[in-house]
Amino acid sequence: MSIHAEHHAVVGAGLIGGIWSLMLAQRGYKVTLYDRRPDPRKAGVDAGRSINLALSDRGWKAIKKAGVESVVRKIALPVKGRMMHDYAGNQFFQQYGNDEQFIYSVSRGRLNMILVEEAEKHPLVEVKFDHPCSGYSLNNDGLVNVNFKDGRSVVHDRLFGTDGVYSSVRSTMIRNDRFNYTQQYIPHGYKEIIMFPSDSGDYRIAENALHIWPRGQFMFMALPNPGGSFTCTLFAPFEGAESFKNIQSDEDVVKFYQKHFPDTIDMLPNLIEDWNANPVSSMCTVKCCPWNVGGRVALLGDSAHAIVPFYGQGMNSGLEDCSILSELIDELPEGASEEQWESLLDEYSQVRKPAADAILDLALHNYIVMRDKTGDKTYQLQKKIEARIAEAHPDKWKPLYSLVTFSHTPYDEALKRGEMQQAVMNVIMSQSDIETTWESEKIIELAINMLEKYQADPNTLARPKPLLSVDV
Amino acid sequence: MSIHAEHHAVVGAGLIGGIWSLMLAQRGYKVTLYDRRPDPRKAGVDAGRSINLALSDRGWKAIKKAGVESVVRKIALPVKGRMMHDYAGNQFFQQYGNDEQFIYSVSRGRLNMILVEEAEKHPLVEVKFDHPCSGYSLNNDGLVNVNFKDGRSVVHDRLFGTDGVYSSVRSTMIRNDRFNYTQQYIPHGYKEIIMFPSDSGDYRIAENALHIWPRGQFMFMALPNPGGSFTCTLFAPFEGAESFKNIQSDEDVVKFYQKHFPDTIDMLPNLIEDWNANPVSSMCTVKCCPWNVGGRVALLGDSAHAIVPFYGQGMNSGLEDCSILSELIDELPEGASEEQWESLLDEYSQVRKPAADAILDLALHNYIVMRDKTGDKTYQLQKKIEARIAEAHPDKWKPLYSLVTFSHTPYDEALKRGEMQQAVMNVIMSQSDIETTWESEKIIELAINMLEKYQADPNTLARPKPLLSVDV
Repeated sequence: MSIHAEHHAVVGAGLIGGIWSLMLAQRGYKVTLYDRRPDPRKAGVDAGRSINLALSDRGWKAIKKAGVESVVRKIALPVKGRMMHDYAGNQFFQQYGNDEQFIYSVSRGRLNMILVEEAEKHPLVEVKFDHPCSGYSLNNDGLVNVNFKDGRSVVHDRLFGTDGVYSSVRSTMIRNDRFNYTQQYIPHGYKEIIMFPSDSGDYRIAENALHIWPRGQFMFMALPNPGGSFTCTLFAPFEGAESFKNIQSDEDVVKFYQKHFPDTIDMLPNLIEDWNANPVSSMCTVKCCPWNVGGRVALLGDSAHAIVPFYGQGMNSGLEDCSILSELIDELPEGASEEQWESLLDEYSQVRKPAADAILDLALHNYIVMRDKTGDKTYQLQKKIEARIAEAHPDKWKPLYSLVTFSHTPYDEALKRGEMQQAVMNVIMSQSDIETTWESEKIIELAINMLEKYQADPNTLARPKPLLSVDV
Repeated sequence: MSIHAEHHAVVGAGLIGGIWSLMLAQRGYKVTLYDRRPDPRKAGVDAGRSINLALSDRGWKAIKKAGVESVVRKIALPVKGRMMHDYAGNQFFQQYGNDEQFIYSVSRGRLNMILVEEAEKHPLVEVKFDHPCSGYSLNNDGLVNVNFKDGRSVVHDRLFGTDGVYSSVRSTMIRNDRFNYTQQYIPHGYKEIIMFPSDSGDYRIAENALHIWPRGQFMFMALPNPGGSFTCTLFAPFEGAESFKNIQSDEDVVKFYQKHFPDTIDMLPNLIEDWNANPVSSMCTVKCCPWNVGGRVALLGDSAHAIVPFYGQGMNSGLEDCSILSELIDELPEGASEEQWESLLDEYSQVRKPAADAILDLALHNYIVMRDKTGDKTYQLQKKIEARIAEAHPDKWKPLYSLVTFSHTPYDEALKRGEMQQAVMNVIMSQSDIETTWESEKIIELAINMLEKYQADPNTLARPKPLLSVDV
C-alpha cells in the first residue's frame, strides 16, 4: 500500500473518531485526530458518559476490519437475552437470537480508550487533545480549514466529523444552503444507579442478561460490567404523574422504588446516594442531510444521526458508517480526483441516510417495546411463536430484532421486512384459539404462506400500525 | 405611562425588529435595536430581498397598534384577487374575499425602512447598525449578555431575537438542553424578474391583482409595485425535467418562457438580463420549541417560525407575534417580578407555537394550490360554490383563505375549520350533477347541514386528505 500525500483531519476522538482514524491510516492516509477534551490518560476516563454500550454484529464487523477484535474481546461481556422482572419479583427470560448469538456489554470509556490508543499506535496517526473545534471553512484552494476555539486554524485535505450529537463540524454545515437538520429531544430522561457486587463479590442478578423492569410509561434496566457490578438506568418521563419531576425527596425515591421495583431495594443500598449524585440526562435525536460537503467534509456516527439508546444500535450504526465508507474508499483508484472523492462522499450520504432514518424510528419504537410490551403476556407469546417460525424456516423468516442485531441487512430493509412480518403476526395473534394452538404446525404454515403472499404482492399487505414516527 | 428601569435588546432591525422596538418603547422600556448590516440610509436598501410582501389583516393589526398605519398606507397597493393566466393567454379572475377585503402589496425594503425610522424617532429607542450578533449568554445575575462578532458584549435585561430565518440568537438556543429545532429546505427555488411599465408608463397587466401562471409543478407570479412595474417570480424545482437545473443557456430561458408563459415574452424585454443577474434562491422552513429562555430571551417572527411565502403570511404571522406579545405585556403589573416575566414568555411560546406550526403547513399546501389547483376547472368551480355559501351564511361558513387572511382567528383554529369545510366540499364536489346544479339553493343547504353535523360531532367527519405534512 502506498502512502498518499493527502492529510486528513478527524474531529472528535470518541469511539467512531478513534476507529475511523485507524481505518484511514490503514488505507495510507496521514491523519490528525483532534479532540476538545484533555487526554483521558492524564485526566481520567470521562465519567459523564457511563452508559454501557451493547456491541453487536454491525459493530464487530468494523472492529474486525480495523484488526482490533482481540483487544476489544477482552472487555466485552456476552449478553444472551432479556430478563424481565415483574412486580412480584418473578423473572422471565427471553433469548435474543439462537444459541450462538449474543450482544456484548462494554464500557464506553474503556472501549473509547482502546480504540484511540490503537489509532495512536499507527505511524500515520497523530492525536491532539485540548483542541476544541469551532467549525470549519473551505479555503480558496478548496481545502478545509479546521478552526479551533482559540483562533488557531489548520489546513487539511479532508475533514471527517465524528464529534457526536452536539457536533461542531455540523454546526458549520447548518449554515450551508439547503442543509436540512432536525434535533428533537424525547420527553423522557434517564438517571444512572450502580448495582455493586454482593458481599461475596458475585453478580446479584443473572450475569448474561440485560435486565428490564418494564412498567408501561417507564422502566428500570441493568447491564452487566466486568467484576460483578451492573450499570442500572431509570428511564422515565420528565413530567407527569410518574415522572422525575414528581420524585424530589429521598422519601419519594424510596417510595417509588418500593412501589415499582421492590425486588431491587435490597440490591441497591446506594440508591439514595447515586440518585442525588447523578443528573437526570436528556436524550436527543438528530437527523440531517446531506452528510457531506462535496468531497471535502463528511460526518460519521452521532454527528450525522443521533438516536435513542433503546435498540442498542447507536454505536453499532456509527461503526457501520465506518465499514461502508472504508469499503467505498477501497474502490477509489490511485490518485483519485476531487470529483471522484465528491461522488464517493455523495454516495456514502445517499446510501446511509435511509438506513439511519430507519434505525432512528426503530430505536424510538423499541423504547415502547422495552418499557411496556416486554411485560405483556401476548407479546411474550408472539415472541415465542416467532422464534418457532424462524427455527423451522431460518431462510424465510428472520425476526426483526435479529435482522437489526445479528445481520448486516441495511436498517431500512430490516424495517420494511419487520413491518411485513408484524402484519403477519397481527393476523396470527388475532386467531381466537391462539393460546392453545400456538405450538401447532399449521400456525407456522399459515405464517409462512402469508409472508410469501405479501412478498409476492406487497399491495395485499394488511398494513400494520406503522413503526415510524412514534410519539414516545 | 412610567418609564421602566429595564433596558431591553432587540437583535435584528428587519420589519419585526423595527416594529417590536417601537412597541416596547411605547410600553416604557428602553430599547437598543442592533443590526449586523450597515445603516441602509447610508448603504442603500438591501437589494437581496426584493420579494414583495402581501400585508393583510393580521399585519395591519400590529401596524395600527404601533400607530404607524398612515405612513404604511402610503406605500401599500391594494390587491383584490388572483388573476390566472392560461397557456392561450386567457385570464381568469378570482376575488380573495368580499368587495371590501384586500391584501396589500408592499416593498420589503421600503416597509423595513419606515418601521425602523419610526422606532428610531421614539426617545427610548436607540438603533445600532454594524453590530453583527454572535449569540448571547446569561450572566451570573441572570441578565443577558448580547455578544457581537468582534468580541464586544453588552448587558441587557431582556433579549428579543428578531433576526430572521438564520437567527444568531437562535443559534445559541440550539445548544440549550431540550431545545427542539428543525430547518427544512423545500426542493424548489425561485428567481426574480422585473416587469417594467409599458412605454406609456402604465401597468402592463391588471394592477389590482396577484398574477399567477399556474403550470402544475412550477409557476410564474407577478405582484404590482407603485409606479407601474411588477416584481415577477418564477418558482420551480431545483432538479428534474422542468427545473432550474435544466435551464442553462439564454436559449433555454427563451424556450422555457415561449413554451410555458408565451403571453409574457413581449412584456419582459429584460428577461435574459434579469435571469443572468439574479440568483436562484432557496426557501427554508424553521420550527423550534420553546421560543423563550425563561423570562430573559424570546424569539419573534422568522427566527422562531420561518415559512414558505405561498400564503403571504410570513410577515403577517411575525407581526401577529408582536400584537400578542404586546398584549401580554400590557397585562403585566407595575414592577413585574422575574417569575412573572418567565410565565409571560412561557405563555407567549405556548400560545404561538401551534399557530406557527399550522401556518407553516398551510403555506406549504398553498404552493400546490397556487401552482396547480388555481388552473384547475374543478377547483375554480369549488371556489365559486364556496363563495356562494359564504355569502348566504357569512356567520356559518368562512372560506379558509378568508380565515387566514381577513381574520384574527388563530391559524391552528383556521386550519381545523378549513379541514372540516374541505371535507364538506369533497362531498359536494363528488355529486355527479354538480356542474349543472351548483347554483341551486339545495347545494348551499346541504353544505351548511353537513358542516353543522361535523361541528356537533367531529367523529362523523369524512377525513379529507390532510393539509398537513405536504411533500412539496
